[in-house]
Amino acid sequence: MKADLDRLMAELNLDAIVVLGDETPNTQREYLTKRASAHGDIFKKRGEPAVFIVNPMEIEEAAKSGLIVKTKYDFGLEEVAKQHKGDMEAIQRGIYRNIFNALGISGRVGLYGAAEVNYAVNLAMMLMDSTMNIQIVAGGDSAKLFAKLYETKDEEEIVALKEAGVLTSQLVRDTQAFISQHYAASLEIGTPITDADDKPLTIGDVKRFIRQRATDLGLTEEDTIFAQGRDAGIPHSRGEDDDVLQVGRSIVYDIFPRKLNTGYFHDMTRTWCIGVAPADVQAAYDDVMHVFKETREEFKKAEDAKNFQIIALDYFESKGHPTHRSAPGSMDGYVHSLGHGLGLNIHEAPGFGLYSTAKLTDGNVFTVEPGLYYPERGYGVRVEDTVYLDETGCHTLTDAPYDLVIPIRQK
Amino acid sequence: MKADLDRLMAELNLDAIVVLGDETPNTQREYLTKRASAHGDIFKKRGEPAVFIVNPMEIEEAAKSGLIVKTKYDFGLEEVAKQHKGDMEAIQRGIYRNIFNALGISGRVGLYGAAEVNYAVNLAMMLMDSTMNIQIVAGGDSAKLFAKLYETKDEEEIVALKEAGVLTSQLVRDTQAFISQHYAASLEIGTPITDADDKPLTIGDVKRFIRQRATDLGLTEEDTIFAQGRDAGIPHSRGEDDDVLQVGRSIVYDIFPRKLNTGYFHDMTRTWCIGVAPADVQAAYDDVMHVFKETREEFKKAEDAKNFQIIALDYFESKGHPTHRSAPGSMDGYVHSLGHGLGLNIHEAPGFGLYSTAKLTDGNVFTVEPGLYYPERGYGVRVEDTVYLDETGCHTLTDAPYDLVIPIRQK
Repeated sequence: MKADLDRLMAELNLDAIVVLGDETPNTQREYLTKRASAHGDIFKKRGEPAVFIVNPMEIEEAAKSGLIVKTKYDFGLEEVAKQHKGDMEAIQRGIYRNIFNALGISGRVGLYGAAEVNYAVNLAMMLMDSTMNIQIVAGGDSAKLFAKLYETKDEEEIVALKEAGVLTSQLVRDTQAFISQHYAASLEIGTPITDADDKPLTIGDVKRFIRQRATDLGLTEEDTIFAQGRDAGIPHSRGEDDDVLQVGRSIVYDIFPRKLNTGYFHDMTRTWCIGVAPADVQAAYDDVMHVFKETREEFKKAEDAKNFQIIALDYFESKGHPTHRSAPGSMDGYVHSLGHGLGLNIHEAPGFGLYSTAKLTDGNVFTVEPGLYYPERGYGVRVEDTVYLDETGCHTLTDAPYDLVIPIRQK
Repeated sequence: MKADLDRLMAELNLDAIVVLGDETPNTQREYLTKRASAHGDIFKKRGEPAVFIVNPMEIEEAAKSGLIVKTKYDFGLEEVAKQHKGDMEAIQRGIYRNIFNALGISGRVGLYGAAEVNYAVNLAMMLMDSTMNIQIVAGGDSAKLFAKLYETKDEEEIVALKEAGVLTSQLVRDTQAFISQHYAASLEIGTPITDADDKPLTIGDVKRFIRQRATDLGLTEEDTIFAQGRDAGIPHSRGEDDDVLQVGRSIVYDIFPRKLNTGYFHDMTRTWCIGVAPADVQAAYDDVMHVFKETREEFKKAEDAKNFQIIALDYFESKGHPTHRSAPGSMDGYVHSLGHGLGLNIHEAPGFGLYSTAKLTDGNVFTVEPGLYYPERGYGVRVEDTVYLDETGCHTLTDAPYDLVIPIRQK
């Protein structure tokens, strides 16, 4: 969490950090600036407060960060620009040198933030220039700084994550109610779902409902997965807008919105069959729920995260499913890891892959999302909650029924 | 435009490009992949088709890019991972070497995309390793590749930009109609705007209307500026949700949404005074509209973009306004540049700053947005359209009245 920054900088042997940014969305900067709508770079010497250097036009917005706010004019931009008229790289170099000198930054300086690669790599090469009194650090242990910060959430963040969970769960329950207000002529598998006037209900219609309801709730969602049948069997397929919903086809509904005013994510998945569930989908769902429940009950402080991936792999393999351990590169079976941390990023530490070195600890917030995929057989199943760990145990932030079969009206 | 890629690579002396990406939003990758929802790196040797290397889970989505799609397994991931068990950086190095060899990439390789800075800089340092048969290029002329691609739009992009313009203009006209359905007890400056039940209309209410209407229209907007009075005088202030709209205060409404299915931006600004306009705001508005019209009529092929900034600076200074030329660092007067190109990014080439080297050309799409800011006097004015240049002249993509005063009902 944020309060660990100086300690982690010492642990990673960093004398200072620079959080770069252009207009690229930049959660590392957002994390340190409380999402103030301002661009600019953050300079922080270990043990000193962070300085946010922005365009003069953005001073007021930047002040919402709570950081010390300065502009490049405070570091001699006018003089440097005159000196190197039009040579943008020389101007940039001059300004950075002035900033490092003014803030007393020397030694090992870690580079962070998000930016265009061409810009960031060129800037890094420029800062490696021997006339600067600093050593640029990237990769190796330094790569872990923000992952380590993100790994545990403080109270303010847990509140934000809870709020996102309440709203996203509401949205998923509302989506189910919206679909269940529709009709099927029979419960034969493949029967199209329609409205009262026999107009077919498409994935595009459902996505439009989701988008509007998300807006009402103060959520922003992108890339929501609402995929049916074979598409549900491809973990990252978003679904096709023109497809009509059908009785008995597995639908994977994976939604991961941010709450607008905080930026914190929630991530949850439900698998639905409208009206009835075919036997093979039901069997896959039962296996997935077994792993979901077994792992969900066992998460605890000081355990290795990867042990839960092993529980999932062992169980799925025991039931005859291929996995990415038993059949690397397979598109069938259990083909991803059990979960991932989340916060201002949809994917954060801790990771739950087979090679994860993470140990669970209080303050972790992460997803649990076992799934089984059989695109050629025309189905996929995934169930996902976002949970958190504290001294009293593992709690879910997600609040929606797990039922596979959802009701539909018959005419 | 996209068709210029090989020519521009030759011009910039690039034998190949690598477009890196992690989960950071990445318009350079989106541009080349038609916004397929897949992560991964793009490798392109000059004169050869681009290869998009993705996670096996994302093959189907990646195929929507129209590029050749491969996975790291096609380049020996399994063997490399076994060889360097758990050493992620060694694995990464081995895979990149295999990819460069398989695609016959050598010589000068430009790095692009958007990513976390720590990751990108470390990767670049790794690729600079002498055992690779390539030379990593960033900065200098190489920095211009995507700017040059973006500088002109092809027909498909113009269509997408027109669509975004139609919808955004609709949204702004609807916002004006929404406000004008409200009431003021009198036209005295400062009188609060209310609904029929005397409930005050706040900026938060207007922003909620904008958000919902944007969703209905298939637009996604973020960071919309709807700022009143002193906040309108601070170009990048977003406005305060709790502020009640008042008669006669200048309101700067700057909105720059993307159309959901294409990702292309529109950018426009209107300044409104509800009911009446105070004399000083009207005078500033007249000066702004003078520059708006004068430049709008003169944009033509082969002209230097910066000349239009000079027109704006000369006129505003002649009317006694400070500018960032006459008073660098000033918060008052005309404090930004006249416009900017836009497309999949809100800010692209051509730029219109005083040091811009851009020459206007057919296929340019850019904003025209003169403004005057006097935060201490409690007002700001900006008017902005998005326009494009073709062989028949300069055309606006924005379609909403420019009127400063908007009507309000009186009780």
